[in-house]
Parts: sequence; C-alpha cells; structure tokens
Amino acid sequence: MTSPSLVHDFGIAVRQLRESRGWSQEMLAAHSDLHRTYVGEVERGLVTPSLVTLHKLACALDIRAADLLLRTDQIASLRNTQHLRLTAIAC
Amino acid sequence: MTSPSLVHDFGIAVRQLRESRGWSQEMLAAHSDLHRTYVGEVERGLVTPSLVTLHKLACALDIRAADLLLRTDQIASLRNTQHLRLTAIAC
Repeated sequence: MTSPSLVHDFGIAVRQLRESRGWSQEMLAAHSDLHRTYVGEVERGLVTPSLVTLHKLACALDIRAADLLLRTDQIASLRNTQHLRLTAIAC
Repeated sequence: MTSPSLVHDFGIAVRQLRESRGWSQEMLAAHSDLHRTYVGEVERGLVTPSLVTLHKLACALDIRAADLLLRTDQIASLRNTQHLRLTAIAC
C-alpha cells in the first residue's frame, strides 16, 4: 500500500467509525483531544497522523489502535478488489 | 497509555523484532527506506513515528502494522504488571 492510499484509507476508517456512533467531527475532536479542523483533515487523508494521534482517535472511538489499522487494511483490500473488478470489465 | 509511554513501548517492540531477525539498525533502515539515525531514535522513543513510518517498519519486519501495535500493547501491559508488582512489594 502506498503512503497516500494508506493515509486515505485510514481517514475513511475513522470517518466510518465516527459516523457509526452518530458523532459529528466536533464530538470526535472533543473526545480525542484534537482540533476539529485536524480531524476533518485526517478523515480526508490530507494529513499523515502520528502514532499518538492514531492512539487518541482509537481511544475516543473505543477500539484498540491495532483494530483501527485492521479496519484500514480491510478498506484497502475492498478498494483493491473493486479496482481489479473494474479493470477486468475494462479488458 | 500516555504518549511518552506509547512511543517508548513502540520503540521497544521495533527493537525486539529487529533483534529477533538478527538485523542491525542499518539493515532495518535499508529495508524500511528510513535513515539509520531515525530508526535509532524510534527505537529509543525519542521521536513520534507517523502512520507511514509505522507501516514502513512493519513491512520491513514482515508483520502487519496492526500486529506491531499489538506487540506495543503487550509490552505496555507487561510494564504495567511489573510496576504493580513492585508497588505491591513496596507497600
């Protein structure tokens, strides 16, 4: 997985988990002790979070940091599968 | 887990995995496309790695990034248990 994809997929994982809790970005920011603007940038894959940010977000979302990365991997796998399908259709 | 402990425990996890492969810091740096000095700083908990660095190190060490964080959690648990034991002896 390339760095842009990794950061992008991580953002999707965070957004999915936040939305599954019915939280706004403001609520996630408050629970994770991060700025709302920064949370938005993380979700859009515009910034590369640090290990500490990853941990803060996972704690706020009540999952282990490792599980947040597993969800990121799952999103990457799904994206790759869809890409393969679209490539197969195009061939 | 506080941020300094998290970064410190992550460094221990990386060092243990590197040493279990019989690799020098130079070898890990070469496999992960990071600078040797930076790998040393990560192992000593002096710098906070990004999600991308975490992923590069995990790939180089041939484990999933999520598993590298699970090892970090295990090290934190072990440290906390030892601290509790020492506290109990001191009481």
